[in-house]
Amino acid sequence: MARALNLAKNGLYTTKPNPRVGCVLVRDDVIIGEGWHVKAGLGHAEIEALNQVADAKGATAYVTLEPCSHYGRTPPCCEALIKAGITRVVAAMQDPNPQVSGKGLKKLKAAGIDVVCGVLEQDALALNRGFIKRMTKNRPFVRSKLAMSLDGRTAMASGESKWITSAEARADVHGLRAESSAILTGINTVLADDPALTARINMNVVQPVRVVLDSQLKMPFTARMASLPGRNLILTCSHDKMKQQIFEKSGFEVYRLPDKNGRLDLHEVMIFLAWQQINEVLVESGPILNGALLTEGLVDEYVVYIAPCILGDQGRGLFKMPGLQQMADRKNLKLCDVRQIGQDLKLTLTP
Amino acid sequence: MARALNLAKNGLYTTKPNPRVGCVLVRDDVIIGEGWHVKAGLGHAEIEALNQVADAKGATAYVTLEPCSHYGRTPPCCEALIKAGITRVVAAMQDPNPQVSGKGLKKLKAAGIDVVCGVLEQDALALNRGFIKRMTKNRPFVRSKLAMSLDGRTAMASGESKWITSAEARADVHGLRAESSAILTGINTVLADDPALTARINMNVVQPVRVVLDSQLKMPFTARMASLPGRNLILTCSHDKMKQQIFEKSGFEVYRLPDKNGRLDLHEVMIFLAWQQINEVLVESGPILNGALLTEGLVDEYVVYIAPCILGDQGRGLFKMPGLQQMADRKNLKLCDVRQIGQDLKLTLTP
Repeated sequence: MARALNLAKNGLYTTKPNPRVGCVLVRDDVIIGEGWHVKAGLGHAEIEALNQVADAKGATAYVTLEPCSHYGRTPPCCEALIKAGITRVVAAMQDPNPQVSGKGLKKLKAAGIDVVCGVLEQDALALNRGFIKRMTKNRPFVRSKLAMSLDGRTAMASGESKWITSAEARADVHGLRAESSAILTGINTVLADDPALTARINMNVVQPVRVVLDSQLKMPFTARMASLPGRNLILTCSHDKMKQQIFEKSGFEVYRLPDKNGRLDLHEVMIFLAWQQINEVLVESGPILNGALLTEGLVDEYVVYIAPCILGDQGRGLFKMPGLQQMADRKNLKLCDVRQIGQDLKLTLTP
Repeated sequence: MARALNLAKNGLYTTKPNPRVGCVLVRDDVIIGEGWHVKAGLGHAEIEALNQVADAKGATAYVTLEPCSHYGRTPPCCEALIKAGITRVVAAMQDPNPQVSGKGLKKLKAAGIDVVCGVLEQDALALNRGFIKRMTKNRPFVRSKLAMSLDGRTAMASGESKWITSAEARADVHGLRAESSAILTGINTVLADDPALTARINMNVVQPVRVVLDSQLKMPFTARMASLPGRNLILTCSHDKMKQQIFEKSGFEVYRLPDKNGRLDLHEVMIFLAWQQINEVLVESGPILNGALLTEGLVDEYVVYIAPCILGDQGRGLFKMPGLQQMADRKNLKLCDVRQIGQDLKLTLTP
């Protein structure tokens, strides 16, 4: 199963909106076939593994996710496993969709196959936490990336911010982007930095969708991202149809979402993104959006790069939180991981 | 020598202003005596070790610092070693005082003793970096301790700061205090927090001297530290002799030092502290003094405790640095050590 999980990770940057899945076929303690899901539209992991073997009769299939039992873009894997004469299936976890969960395993059992489920389940859950959250809660998994100086500053007072962290840390961020289905930012970041928000990494990547929260449609038509391949979404609460049409001709998709006190309702934003089949969201934004997301409790994980330098008290901070006045109201996080990336520190924290 | 260094560490909290020194006597591959310097006025490490042995003839003495050759509060260790019939001396480092360095080893050699120097020298240098800096540069070793939230805040806007870090991190700070010869703070910290600045730790400690930088003599006569045992130093550039006399009756020592644009000249402060036999200074202060010390390049080491919580952009920062406007002017540090203390992170950095 550990091997199957490693195979599944080959699809880390490409399977979106599908889950990452790996499969290993074993007979007489020898691996006879391996496969993983590469990309939506291509074969599921089980099929890829079966295709490697002339005859899989009597083999055990280790698979990181319950085999599917329904016709989607491809025929159901259950039937293929039964037809190939597999006699035992070991799954790491059930299908997270509560509507179909267990149906695949049931079908296999009904065909006389020996079925085990739950092997290395925690690892399998971690690998697809975005897909699982979308299936079970109709929300994406939200990760916010922050890059700061040791004294908690993301830019100078002037806005100058290139570069606080090292080249190695910035390369690491491109990995986070590649894993993500969408990159979420605020209009102020676009106006200040005109970012590309692409995953620049030397591997096959299905590029994340760029999503800009822009309540009042302040987006410049000339924004760099408009000229890049891939989708650019503007989420707004503006009623300006004319502007909307011009944006749509300039390379943007514009969606009007409900507001809350004149600003986009961030809960509605997340529901919308799940509806757009976004599994994992990477937030790369300034203190206003980060403060609002923290206040609303909408972030599942923080990845914080700390550069060992001092920018001073005039520099810009991480979280604008006007409501936070007393120590008792502070937001507590849990430190999950610490590692050194180049000369910087990378912390992973959860609420 | 590793054993001798460990013995020396027994004096970590007590030898000030003397160095920490350990000694091991070995004959025929067997340790026959051990000792360390406990406290100024008590025996040097070599004498403590010799006192454990009826007959040290033919033994090797491992000692973490070159044995002294002059009469101080105690007779010279060189003579004691020669008299005891020691035939070999292994020292980790020479005496750091350039005026006497090497004289002890020379005297031992002249007496026919086999002498080696430089074994585990780096460890020996690290153990007494304050003493060494004072001897060689006439300045103390300066360490600044900072405690902050993940977003670089040391207090709420109101000044409320109890407590950002965990009980474990705060206990760790008492260890830093116990190692230090002096704790340096600014008058604003005294006015805001009325701190005790004592090392509260369950071991024998020679308490650090409390030093407050107070250019205009704003210190309240009723400050908590005045009623505590130990020395309280006020460094000022005020000429108010009357006030100075009242402070001196209230439990303070007041020293007038040269100013620089109406504030204490921080370089003069360090020279003064070295003259006061301060080996290691622990800075526990707010953003003004920390910003000024950083600007002047006067800090040798930063110890930063990071609590995994968010206080928001209105909270107070670490370093007030009005002159720092451009990224190119940022202050770069080197990350030397990262460890977890309770739920917090402890970073050690050097300029």
